[in-house]
Amino acid sequence: MKTMIQVRSAEIGDVATIRRLIVELARYERAEHEARATEAQLREGLFGERATAHALICECDGEPIGYAVYFFNYSTWLGRNGIYLEDLYVTPEQRGQGAGKALLKHLARLAMAKDCGRFEWAVLDWNMPAIEFYRAAGARPMDEWTVYRLEGQALRDFAETE
Amino acid sequence: MKTMIQVRSAEIGDVATIRRLIVELARYERAEHEARATEAQLREGLFGERATAHALICECDGEPIGYAVYFFNYSTWLGRNGIYLEDLYVTPEQRGQGAGKALLKHLARLAMAKDCGRFEWAVLDWNMPAIEFYRAAGARPMDEWTVYRLEGQALRDFAETE
Repeated sequence: MKTMIQVRSAEIGDVATIRRLIVELARYERAEHEARATEAQLREGLFGERATAHALICECDGEPIGYAVYFFNYSTWLGRNGIYLEDLYVTPEQRGQGAGKALLKHLARLAMAKDCGRFEWAVLDWNMPAIEFYRAAGARPMDEWTVYRLEGQALRDFAETE
Repeated sequence: MKTMIQVRSAEIGDVATIRRLIVELARYERAEHEARATEAQLREGLFGERATAHALICECDGEPIGYAVYFFNYSTWLGRNGIYLEDLYVTPEQRGQGAGKALLKHLARLAMAKDCGRFEWAVLDWNMPAIEFYRAAGARPMDEWTVYRLEGQALRDFAETE
């Protein structure tokens, strides 16, 4: 029997599923304790009046097996928006059926439809299966660049000093 | 005579100045040919009805000497928006007066005011003055992560194949 893989926009009723999958992904990324978003926060951030992030659900025969969260970034070189993929995840027992590729392709097509110049995401350097999958899709690593982050007490300290 | 450094939100009349400074920054980043945004595109992307990116101007005694472009990203771990700094630039002859720090601090304060969990940006690995400046501000490198990018023909190819 052939299974049916389908990608759709997430709805507000998917928030509990999305949160469960976010925690699964954080566990895989060895950072479960960092996945602190509550359902209320996700509802606000993905479906609230001023939400800037969006989510997709991937289903296999109608059951959610993966998700993606993305937002629009901006390139001053291109003068155009891009799509930034914050999370892409397929539950381990459902891998190998093309669900990850279906999610990535859905967003590549959205990038084309929205006239976006780029489609980007960050990958952990030790996550070889992901890196191979992304290279096969035609993505290239932005090796010359490193992201710097200010957060928590360091952000407060820097903001508050004269 | 003490010079007066001031940061303000950019206005639509600043677009020509912003474009000039974007090209200067791209030249510094050894990628002048990649800075292709027209004034019309910047007007749309920064001030259009569906604009998601924003700009700041830094002035010295009323003359623009630097700019920043930023947008709101999203963390599924925190369930909160963050600020992503796409560009930060101060014209070389005006450096050393605190203009870069004033722009960075303005955004750190905005991040606090908007309850953002993070303030992030990417730095070229060979740009040592920038790296030292960011480390001194308390930012830390996200060394474990590499950004992958799909663009141009590779993006079209991936989007269009079944």
